[in-house]
Amino acid sequence: MTGAFALRARDGAARRGSLRLAHGTVETPTFMPVGTAATVKGLDPRELVELGAQIVLANTYHLWLRPGRETIEAAGGLHAFMGWQQPILTDSGGFQVFSLESRRAVSDDGVRFRSHLDGSEHEFTPENVVAFQEALGVDVAMALDVCVKLPAERDEIAEAVRRTTLWARRCAEARTSEATLLFGIVQGGLDLDLRARSAEELVGLGLPGYAIGGLSVGETREECYGTARHTATLLPEDKPRYLMGVGTVRDVIEAVDCGIDMFDCVYPTRCGRNGRAMTRRGEFAIRNAGYTRDFRPVDPGCSCAVCARFSRAYLSHLFRAGEMLGPRLLSYHNLAVLSTVMADARDAIARGQWAAFRAAALDALAAEGDP
Amino acid sequence: MTGAFALRARDGAARRGSLRLAHGTVETPTFMPVGTAATVKGLDPRELVELGAQIVLANTYHLWLRPGRETIEAAGGLHAFMGWQQPILTDSGGFQVFSLESRRAVSDDGVRFRSHLDGSEHEFTPENVVAFQEALGVDVAMALDVCVKLPAERDEIAEAVRRTTLWARRCAEARTSEATLLFGIVQGGLDLDLRARSAEELVGLGLPGYAIGGLSVGETREECYGTARHTATLLPEDKPRYLMGVGTVRDVIEAVDCGIDMFDCVYPTRCGRNGRAMTRRGEFAIRNAGYTRDFRPVDPGCSCAVCARFSRAYLSHLFRAGEMLGPRLLSYHNLAVLSTVMADARDAIARGQWAAFRAAALDALAAEGDP
Repeated sequence: MTGAFALRARDGAARRGSLRLAHGTVETPTFMPVGTAATVKGLDPRELVELGAQIVLANTYHLWLRPGRETIEAAGGLHAFMGWQQPILTDSGGFQVFSLESRRAVSDDGVRFRSHLDGSEHEFTPENVVAFQEALGVDVAMALDVCVKLPAERDEIAEAVRRTTLWARRCAEARTSEATLLFGIVQGGLDLDLRARSAEELVGLGLPGYAIGGLSVGETREECYGTARHTATLLPEDKPRYLMGVGTVRDVIEAVDCGIDMFDCVYPTRCGRNGRAMTRRGEFAIRNAGYTRDFRPVDPGCSCAVCARFSRAYLSHLFRAGEMLGPRLLSYHNLAVLSTVMADARDAIARGQWAAFRAAALDALAAEGDP
Repeated sequence: MTGAFALRARDGAARRGSLRLAHGTVETPTFMPVGTAATVKGLDPRELVELGAQIVLANTYHLWLRPGRETIEAAGGLHAFMGWQQPILTDSGGFQVFSLESRRAVSDDGVRFRSHLDGSEHEFTPENVVAFQEALGVDVAMALDVCVKLPAERDEIAEAVRRTTLWARRCAEARTSEATLLFGIVQGGLDLDLRARSAEELVGLGLPGYAIGGLSVGETREECYGTARHTATLLPEDKPRYLMGVGTVRDVIEAVDCGIDMFDCVYPTRCGRNGRAMTRRGEFAIRNAGYTRDFRPVDPGCSCAVCARFSRAYLSHLFRAGEMLGPRLLSYHNLAVLSTVMADARDAIARGQWAAFRAAALDALAAEGDP
């Protein structure tokens, strides 16, 4: 059955599962590369398959504005449009719209906003973002939510929780497709009582999956993972849990340790474009002078198609020369690192060796000074 | 024997040959993608193999300045540095230096110039450009030449011919490697007598291949091909002929018809980055409004890995959204078009059907208004 989440193993809070979706089964825990505008920046979908990506994320906000629903529907859906045949998750657009701040007005009906591209007026409602995501034919759609920037007053967070539940219910009622699963998004800031209220109300809707939203928005790492760990315990065992906006090697390991199954973040590809290399022994700037004659791979412990063929010296040269192959190759490598960390994490959980795996992974990061 | 050029077939002036080089045999006529700074912009070497590239060109001028000889030597040569195992041809740097104009000073010794990167002073001599290219371990090195911008006075062109011969002789004497072949470059502008003098002097050196330089520098298409056709007749039958700076579908067909075996140009990749699509039925701007809902491949007659998977609408979206995957995919396609045109040309010549192939190819271009 599509949407069936099978919990294969648990080790402490860490979980090893399988999520069956319309375009394939996703083994969890998994990291989802971000393809904001129907492209994971710089990468060909066949490269994403090769590096082990199972599911990618795209953004309702961006695709709504450009190229728009009609174009993607005429293409035969988002999978056909972008040439990616594996699962896709789209966010609801809520996060993007709330970050527009002065350009939006929110009511119980929905949120009116102006495009960052041309200033044109648009409105997201719980109903129309579900219709949009279903029209795109994605595997997982996110409910429209209210994301509050931290720090914030308790009243503001409580109001966001109220509206997020109201909208999630209307999203659930608006569903028309069985191929697209609707996930709810738990809000509540760092207030554990509000997190509990939000989780309880959303779980009451019986959705096939739940995200933890409103984190990675300005709080400390301890606050983020304390809240995520607590919130995860409030969610059903038999449904996938998705922590939004997490994507460093350290953070995905910590999130798995909190009992999270899915993550996404622009971090690996943004770093790739900016010359920041991710490895399991920390990160470094490929442009630094020390790498211009360093003929080792970006990560000597990595077996990706970039590390197998190119040196730090070559990538350093590409970045110094402003060559687009540099961002492309480093984005590939960074995603491959997260992909193999996740594969190894799944294996460790299945073997009941999660705690040892986590300790060793964090030690390796600390050894060379992960920022 | 490395450097052995075997003429397999002739049809009119058009030639079908095989050039055995240290890193493999190149079937001619062939188009060489340009990888100025040790990268064909945006493309992975394995993609170049896939699209049918047999040999790539890199630039002595650019690599001399960045990353420099020591880095490439330490990497084990240019092939290892850039991850490309098939043949490489490097130009001598002459063309780039002469286009610096106010930043260079030429004498019989060589040419002094200032780097466009940091203003530092450098000198190219016949001896040091050969040493540099041999140190890189390339398959074909070009002799240092004097390239004159057209139109120019006859005296200036004659002086360029004199110096080009002088330098070619010194380049030939400076050779130390059998793995790197040295090609001479025939100059002489549009003056057929000077072309004859240049060709005769260079052929007297018994080099393993000859380029026709100093064209595609401001003259008309008729002047260019009239000169190339005449010059080709002055070159030995049993040596490869290389016309520098040619790379539209129409131009490579015309050049083959002149008896040329090898070409290079930044045109297909530059067009790819700028959203200009090349097809065998003419070129078009992918950003044009008419393509936003055009779900055909870039070139419905093309079977490349881009046309097999992506639509004009998707590429149009990528370019409008400023996504780097757009330039990457279109560069791939444009090179694939030239690669298949060359493969079909080789086949037509071998079958004795070159004239019909050429006529049909030019008709197809004219049908949709090749610019």
